[in-house]
Amino acid sequence: MSVTFAKGFSAAGVAAGISSVEGKKDLALVVNQGPLDSAAGVFTFNRFCAAPVQWSRKTVADGHIKAVILNSGGANACTGQAGYEQSAATAKKVADLVGTQPDEIAVCSTGLIGELLPLDHVLSGVESAYAALSDDDQAGSDASHAIMTTDTKPKTVSLEGDGYRIGGMVKGSGMIAPQLATMLCVITTDAAVGAGQLQAALNAAVDHSFNRIDVDGCMSTNDTVLLLASGASGVEPDPDEFNALVAKACASLARQIIGDGEGASHDVRITVTGATTESAALACARAVAASNLLKCAIAGNDPNWGRIVSSLGTVPVEEAPYDSQKVTVDVNGVRICENGGAGRDRSEVDMTPREVHIDIDLNAGDEQATVWTDDLTHEYVHINADYES
Amino acid sequence: MSVTFAKGFSAAGVAAGISSVEGKKDLALVVNQGPLDSAAGVFTFNRFCAAPVQWSRKTVADGHIKAVILNSGGANACTGQAGYEQSAATAKKVADLVGTQPDEIAVCSTGLIGELLPLDHVLSGVESAYAALSDDDQAGSDASHAIMTTDTKPKTVSLEGDGYRIGGMVKGSGMIAPQLATMLCVITTDAAVGAGQLQAALNAAVDHSFNRIDVDGCMSTNDTVLLLASGASGVEPDPDEFNALVAKACASLARQIIGDGEGASHDVRITVTGATTESAALACARAVAASNLLKCAIAGNDPNWGRIVSSLGTVPVEEAPYDSQKVTVDVNGVRICENGGAGRDRSEVDMTPREVHIDIDLNAGDEQATVWTDDLTHEYVHINADYES
Repeated sequence: MSVTFAKGFSAAGVAAGISSVEGKKDLALVVNQGPLDSAAGVFTFNRFCAAPVQWSRKTVADGHIKAVILNSGGANACTGQAGYEQSAATAKKVADLVGTQPDEIAVCSTGLIGELLPLDHVLSGVESAYAALSDDDQAGSDASHAIMTTDTKPKTVSLEGDGYRIGGMVKGSGMIAPQLATMLCVITTDAAVGAGQLQAALNAAVDHSFNRIDVDGCMSTNDTVLLLASGASGVEPDPDEFNALVAKACASLARQIIGDGEGASHDVRITVTGATTESAALACARAVAASNLLKCAIAGNDPNWGRIVSSLGTVPVEEAPYDSQKVTVDVNGVRICENGGAGRDRSEVDMTPREVHIDIDLNAGDEQATVWTDDLTHEYVHINADYES
Repeated sequence: MSVTFAKGFSAAGVAAGISSVEGKKDLALVVNQGPLDSAAGVFTFNRFCAAPVQWSRKTVADGHIKAVILNSGGANACTGQAGYEQSAATAKKVADLVGTQPDEIAVCSTGLIGELLPLDHVLSGVESAYAALSDDDQAGSDASHAIMTTDTKPKTVSLEGDGYRIGGMVKGSGMIAPQLATMLCVITTDAAVGAGQLQAALNAAVDHSFNRIDVDGCMSTNDTVLLLASGASGVEPDPDEFNALVAKACASLARQIIGDGEGASHDVRITVTGATTESAALACARAVAASNLLKCAIAGNDPNWGRIVSSLGTVPVEEAPYDSQKVTVDVNGVRICENGGAGRDRSEVDMTPREVHIDIDLNAGDEQATVWTDDLTHEYVHINADYES
């Protein structure tokens, strides 16, 4: 369903010869046919952000985007002025075909850092993609396949509001850290919403979704989340419902990233309750999610709560006040740590489900936060040691 | 040579039945026979610090320690009041034998978090260890073996000053993060040095050694570094020489930890130069050292500079001002990143040596810092997923 689920959007995914994998779809085009062209974006904070991020951040700034061109097979990051010119040339090619200006085109790239793209392949691919544009399900699906790199499956979302729709696609399975945790994401809606409202909805949604997942603690140079509104439904949505739906779309896509984390055999939900503030809860949850030792233990089906509390113990008291003697930890519903010490026997925990739930109660207040991570497996090392990506 | 290299110290390492590995030496005793009993200590910042850390931090505070008792096979962490009483009982047993008070005894434990020690085995082991005390090389070696857990080899140091000696031992190969990166360490000297001078020398040495290595980003609950002076040489050392020797001892032991990092196939030195301040250089070096993606790439003999700069790019500009377009990266002497972009071809880098040198020049100032880490291998995951530790 993907980005074409919402009315007013056409898409395509084609093989342009950018990826080193023969015949892989590696170029996606999403066109907003209006009547509106509102847009919002959130981008990586990485100081080595890629050329397409530099380009798109600028073009999205005025709240209007008519099309997004995305490629896998190359990040176009750390490529200097030449890389920036590739993004600009790609945007110009799309603009010429779509009949608009380059500054109405967002550009997204993903793949190996440090190399220029094969620009001739990109530009001829843009022509093929433009020719293949369609608003049907298959076109949306093709686009979601074309942005995949180490992803094992496409990740899409389709939601219905009161008279309007939201569709989306995302790619990402490695270099996923809580700030900003995604690679490339395009969400479309046919609701009639202005850029300001879009940006507010997207900021809130990203903060509680892509910013709360962590596969490997590594922040990408290319992270881009775009939200485009065509207004084709003619419906001006209830703001609360709309914000909630955008949040739900982002949460679904973020959850799918975790479910496809590189080499993962378990998806791990870490919820910290009983904190004095939400940010204290979040700091604790993130510290636990970042522990390689815990992630290895979970890969080995070992609910090693010592590794949970030792990570918790690294959060400075100024960031999260709590008494270590009052902390409890439940794993999959079994309270294996009570008052900061041993609780029920950890052999009672059933670790066979794909989803592992770690519930930490700091017993210090009423605030909470949840983050998601994956376990750390042989396969993660294999993917990132033996493959060039 | 270990802790008995310095005069005035006797030691022992015995099998007390604490470890689950049949017959493994798991209890070490180090006794300072004086005439001085000056001591200094540095401990983990973990808020779930183990009972022996709580005990030893208190006993070392007055600058005097007559003996250290150390065990592998159990961390005695997150064991509450009962765990603290085990540390106290162990100290009392040692004190009775040595002929002093329990508050002159430091206690160190390492192993699984969350379980009490088999105290009867510990106490009878203390008797065996006391009976086995000797100031010969073998006794020092036995002690260094008795503190090992996943370590594949003992780690010791022996240095000669002008008329005095420094010896030491350390254990640690996992749960090693830059703050504080060690597990258990005892350094001895026969120099005549007071507690204040010892503590100053140790603080400075630890800051540039154990605090600058990172195997897996995980901070232990049990980290303890002790420096004991017997004064048996009768020599009051030149302070600068003494400080430098303590720094050298810590650096050697820290380097040995990296060389024995769990499952590691490469030791990685990351030096950041051209920073505006030392702390800026350190923040950048630590960010690179913490990258799972880079560590996997190095395990695969891939000098993936994109993963180096993308980690560098996560350090906030307030912490480390630099221009990403001016950064250079050399791996094993080959400048593969120039002006923030591609330099020489990365295939020119020889990745076969065990040691990998990453030299990053921020070209922003004159300060620098170095940290060491390991690569991230299948074996690391194996050790920490499939073993209980």
